[in-house]
Amino acid sequence: MGNTFGQLFRVTTFGESHGGGVGVVIDGCPPNVELSKAEIQSELDRRRPGQSKITTQRKEEDQCEILSGVFEGKTLGAPIAILVRNRDARPGDYVEIAEKFRPSHADFTYEAKYGIRNWQGGGRASARETIGRVAAGAVAKKILSLLHAEFEIVAYVAQIHGVVANIDRSAVKTKDVEKNILRCPDTAAAKQMVSLIEQVRGEGDSIGGIIECVVRGVPPGLGEPVFDKLEADLAKAMLSIPATKGFEIGSGFAATRMRGSEHNDPFEMRGGKIRAATNNSGGVQGGISNGEEIYFRVAFKPTATIGHQQKTVTSSHMQTQLAARGRHDPCVLPRAVPVVEAMGALVLCDQALRQRAIIADRGSRITE
Amino acid sequence: MGNTFGQLFRVTTFGESHGGGVGVVIDGCPPNVELSKAEIQSELDRRRPGQSKITTQRKEEDQCEILSGVFEGKTLGAPIAILVRNRDARPGDYVEIAEKFRPSHADFTYEAKYGIRNWQGGGRASARETIGRVAAGAVAKKILSLLHAEFEIVAYVAQIHGVVANIDRSAVKTKDVEKNILRCPDTAAAKQMVSLIEQVRGEGDSIGGIIECVVRGVPPGLGEPVFDKLEADLAKAMLSIPATKGFEIGSGFAATRMRGSEHNDPFEMRGGKIRAATNNSGGVQGGISNGEEIYFRVAFKPTATIGHQQKTVTSSHMQTQLAARGRHDPCVLPRAVPVVEAMGALVLCDQALRQRAIIADRGSRITE
Amino acid sequence: MGNTFGQLFRVTTFGESHGGGVGVVIDGCPPNVELSKAEIQSELDRRRPGQSKITTQRKEEDQCEILSGVFEGKTLGAPIAILVRNRDARPGDYVEIAEKFRPSHADFTYEAKYGIRNWQGGGRASARETIGRVAAGAVAKKILSLLHAEFEIVAYVAQIHGVVANIDRSAVKTKDVEKNILRCPDTAAAKQMVSLIEQVRGEGDSIGGIIECVVRGVPPGLGEPVFDKLEADLAKAMLSIPATKGFEIGSGFAATRMRGSEHNDPFEMRGGKIRAATNNSGGVQGGISNGEEIYFRVAFKPTATIGHQQKTVTSSHMQTQLAARGRHDPCVLPRAVPVVEAMGALVLCDQALRQRAIIADRGSRITE
Amino acid sequence: MGNTFGQLFRVTTFGESHGGGVGVVIDGCPPNVELSKAEIQSELDRRRPGQSKITTQRKEEDQCEILSGVFEGKTLGAPIAILVRNRDARPGDYVEIAEKFRPSHADFTYEAKYGIRNWQGGGRASARETIGRVAAGAVAKKILSLLHAEFEIVAYVAQIHGVVANIDRSAVKTKDVEKNILRCPDTAAAKQMVSLIEQVRGEGDSIGGIIECVVRGVPPGLGEPVFDKLEADLAKAMLSIPATKGFEIGSGFAATRMRGSEHNDPFEMRGGKIRAATNNSGGVQGGISNGEEIYFRVAFKPTATIGHQQKTVTSSHMQTQLAARGRHDPCVLPRAVPVVEAMGALVLCDQALRQRAIIADRGSRITE
Repeated sequence: MGNTFGQLFRVTTFGESHGGGVGVVIDGCPPNVELSKAEIQSELDRRRPGQSKITTQRKEEDQCEILSGVFEGKTLGAPIAILVRNRDARPGDYVEIAEKFRPSHADFTYEAKYGIRNWQGGGRASARETIGRVAAGAVAKKILSLLHAEFEIVAYVAQIHGVVANIDRSAVKTKDVEKNILRCPDTAAAKQMVSLIEQVRGEGDSIGGIIECVVRGVPPGLGEPVFDKLEADLAKAMLSIPATKGFEIGSGFAATRMRGSEHNDPFEMRGGKIRAATNNSGGVQGGISNGEEIYFRVAFKPTATIGHQQKTVTSSHMQTQLAARGRHDPCVLPRAVPVVEAMGALVLCDQALRQRAIIADRGSRITE
Repeated sequence: MGNTFGQLFRVTTFGESHGGGVGVVIDGCPPNVELSKAEIQSELDRRRPGQSKITTQRKEEDQCEILSGVFEGKTLGAPIAILVRNRDARPGDYVEIAEKFRPSHADFTYEAKYGIRNWQGGGRASARETIGRVAAGAVAKKILSLLHAEFEIVAYVAQIHGVVANIDRSAVKTKDVEKNILRCPDTAAAKQMVSLIEQVRGEGDSIGGIIECVVRGVPPGLGEPVFDKLEADLAKAMLSIPATKGFEIGSGFAATRMRGSEHNDPFEMRGGKIRAATNNSGGVQGGISNGEEIYFRVAFKPTATIGHQQKTVTSSHMQTQLAARGRHDPCVLPRAVPVVEAMGALVLCDQALRQRAIIADRGSRITE
Repeated sequence: MGNTFGQLFRVTTFGESHGGGVGVVIDGCPPNVELSKAEIQSELDRRRPGQSKITTQRKEEDQCEILSGVFEGKTLGAPIAILVRNRDARPGDYVEIAEKFRPSHADFTYEAKYGIRNWQGGGRASARETIGRVAAGAVAKKILSLLHAEFEIVAYVAQIHGVVANIDRSAVKTKDVEKNILRCPDTAAAKQMVSLIEQVRGEGDSIGGIIECVVRGVPPGLGEPVFDKLEADLAKAMLSIPATKGFEIGSGFAATRMRGSEHNDPFEMRGGKIRAATNNSGGVQGGISNGEEIYFRVAFKPTATIGHQQKTVTSSHMQTQLAARGRHDPCVLPRAVPVVEAMGALVLCDQALRQRAIIADRGSRITE
Repeated sequence: MGNTFGQLFRVTTFGESHGGGVGVVIDGCPPNVELSKAEIQSELDRRRPGQSKITTQRKEEDQCEILSGVFEGKTLGAPIAILVRNRDARPGDYVEIAEKFRPSHADFTYEAKYGIRNWQGGGRASARETIGRVAAGAVAKKILSLLHAEFEIVAYVAQIHGVVANIDRSAVKTKDVEKNILRCPDTAAAKQMVSLIEQVRGEGDSIGGIIECVVRGVPPGLGEPVFDKLEADLAKAMLSIPATKGFEIGSGFAATRMRGSEHNDPFEMRGGKIRAATNNSGGVQGGISNGEEIYFRVAFKPTATIGHQQKTVTSSHMQTQLAARGRHDPCVLPRAVPVVEAMGALVLCDQALRQRAIIADRGSRITE
């Protein structure tokens, strides 16, 4: 029962890569919010396979249908169910893995946990599951924009293998991200990254990298100590994305080599507001947003599916070899950018609604 | 309402650093488990202030009382409430910070969120809150040991500022960790770390570092996709600990510079079991344990409380200066080791109980 | 965010009466359970409109589709999404109620709560929402049967308006219930009830009654004090069904006029087991099942939709009159029988899985 | 893990009747609410044993201590932990029941569920557990009064065994309830009830009855379809109170004998507002408050503890006899009145906070 995320803005995804479809039910969406299929579809299109030469060439349109919760273009306050049908199934591609556990995939662990698995293309462990997240994230972004006029969340590829982009974090906008297929706002680095991915694909191999995400326009006060701290919820959200291995916020692991006198963010008055002069905290202090930019980084491992012959075993305990034949991404990061944004938006939307519950009017408290 | 952690093994902490006390209520503890105050106290003693020359010199005995849920030395299946009274309050130490926001502390954000804060020593944001976590973690460890005979969880300091320990992760035991006050099993590195901390304290400054944690004896099958993946729950658990800035599991951020052909963990038969030949996955694949060692690393920033004069503002928006006078840790890591273990144990215990719900008997499924 | 029910067997329904469809996502279903569309459909057919002369004559096939979570006829442990498309929409039937609040319906309260409502046929407040519950209930029944071989849950109509059935509660079986369209095992009373409903329908009026439900084969030990007591969860489940006004378990309201010496159920040894000699407790003591029959009764009010002219107001605050024109049930009870069973099964399945988490093997505890 | 109640205003009780104490942790309480120990104590005093000649003569002061969450007389937004120490233990009173299962108590079911029980005075199943509920209810009442100026919740004894009070439900105030020890505002009936209880006690027997509760000043809009309907949450809350057997709201079971044309509550304009002309709905329609008085009734069985010799069995399966010797209430209702109010307040406070999350400002929606 781990398929639900969030306390007040509560998202439940469903679906395997092969079968009737994948989707999401969003419970707790405020009523009277204008919401169209197109807004959701445009986010799904950023995640869609086959969108460029460096992604998998599977053809999936991933057209969504809003099954419920929206009436005459507005949310009802009722659950919003969104469905994307599965297409382009080639079960033949997967016959071999019905028996063989793919290294560093979830085949073995699903079998160990459940005693059964849908071996067609990853089943529930397929990245296709993230469709539901992206659809829900589109709704979360919409609500956050209504609640906080300045709100924006922008994720981008910051590193692919050894290629590190040079990005002005505080200036980058979605249009800068979307201007190339790599979703890296550093054009020169993006070109190198594309070349590297094509080379690696040619070698039947795969690579990983880092996605950075910056969130602006979040007011001070979001996050719920002590366990639902903003960074804790973000960490969980990010590590729940397939292929992630690490998360850091603000100074992150670099903080471990700094002194307090360097790392601390002094407060100052700026524009009539209490502001942090530096932002090693990454916009969060004590688990609560402080009004500064929130930024964090997510480590993605290289795609587990590779063309090389690999040593593995069968479900009947025989030693064997396996080489992937399915169509796959040599590097998931360009398509994972909207997933990172979606999960970030889910966390922030949930925390924004939770904060509303204890605060009566904007800026005042329940008793005032 | 973010003070509860876990789904089936559900822990709620309470208490501020100054006030009646701090503690925890554990709901969902299985019945008939032998449990003594001493088992809990011994873990609390590892976290206690004043335990060595490199920690804060505050004298807090932190004696716990089990208020409920245990009868004649055994758990009842009822909530276990554990209370530790506050002592050694010197409110005078905190008068200054009633008005001044300490940089990189939670003073400002608590004020922004709640419109009120207990300014005595950090209030709810104090690391003293982790007492409840450590107490609950002691119970979780006990249950895990009963469920899985080989279970052990060992955290240790792997890095302090620039000093990196050299540790054989797969061999390290709790006794190796406890043999020095730094809780670093590399004796030579530990000495250097102690010196560095003493030096930094002398300079009125602070430093951070990395705690690594290894978990052994976890069977394949723990973790609940897609949101409550084992690494997702661990990431949340770790980022909910005060002063943490990052989390990585297995290969972590290093994975971003590896190729799939290097990173993948081939399966092989070993000792009659399906085993991974390498362990870049860190014991988790697709969010579910695979039976290998689980290991992860947590980044701690330098303590925010330092003796230097720092620029800040008052709650009435005046620019001012602040230098800490309270007794504090120049480096939190030695005392954070049991906290990391506790949070890790909470995650694993919760997931172990969740797995029991869907599996009938050890090794078999509900329908068998 | 009130559309999810259960802790471990967690059911989320979605959908309005008009729109894409209604359905359910079941999270936490154990893996490897054989499950077919037919099993779910047969329960839905018991709830379906137009099934007999005393129900609404709307023609809705209510054919379900399993979108996910089942593979080659077995559950995967992944979320099971089930969808039933909406059909036979006659929006013209509902134009009038777009403006007028129907007395004792949810039109006004939905408007008050959300500021918007889908006025087509009740929207989310439509009894059509119970399709998702019945589908999930079919899965819950299946699991309960696997866990407890003797498990059975049988609901039936015990009273319609002034006609009270005479039923041997401990003997009644599903086949006795299904032998007439009223779903009342007392054939003579059933005939009277049918006549009464037809008469009332002819008068443009409606009536209510009582559904009783008996559950057998539940072992001692289900139910989680102190808030998730078995009777508390059942009460919530039943009062969440549209048109319900009351719940009683065991002796119920009659207990208020009994003395302790009459009401107490003495224990005795019977068949080698500790058994209650009488069953005023209704199979539950202290919130936990005691192994005896669980039985409870649910009060249903008369259908709010009637053909009479009724006084009401419009959304623009004008006094007006309203008489229903849509096709509706003059008495909901015959079709509510499977809904009561479904909600009862959801509670018991959830509690059965929760109990498994703390008990290792059948009959033994975690430490044995 | 059934010891937590509520989604946003989340209450966890702990403690057995014998042991360190009983209490509650309240998470999600809004900050900046003035709260004193006295406010909580005054509610606890209404529940306290030994308060009058018709209650148990056990002497328990039940003095509460606020351990956390309140600072300088105001709530912090942090968890509020409240502890009441146990006193006046006479374990000797309970030696017999260590072996013998008391009929219609929870002794047998706790043993069956957990394989262990605290046999001293009921352990966790003791009504003493409701202390935590009453303490939390005091806080909930305070918040509701701040949110809704007209809010009041009044419970009273409406029936004891065959004695039915005659009460003007819409006029009754707390002072009317508190004017006699029976907590029945009908003075004449109260006298009869007191006599009856004294007579029954003299006979070593016990009796039950009905508590009615009325809630005023609740705005339209509280309650979360489809599972967390207001009446569903209330039903669960009430059936989680020890010794309850039934719940009905508004017309309740009487609705089963009414026609729709009688039962429906026509809408009318009154005082510039949309109002129901009658209130068979009990203030709730479609699971959401409609602004009218909410009223409901709770059935209490006769106390299980009686002085008569009763047939029962021992834990070692021997037939035996048992007669209570402990000091007990012959009728729990007078002391249960504050418990019913507390549980009602917990439900309403939780739903009021949940409604705030989706509505921006009083009276307007998120997008306005």
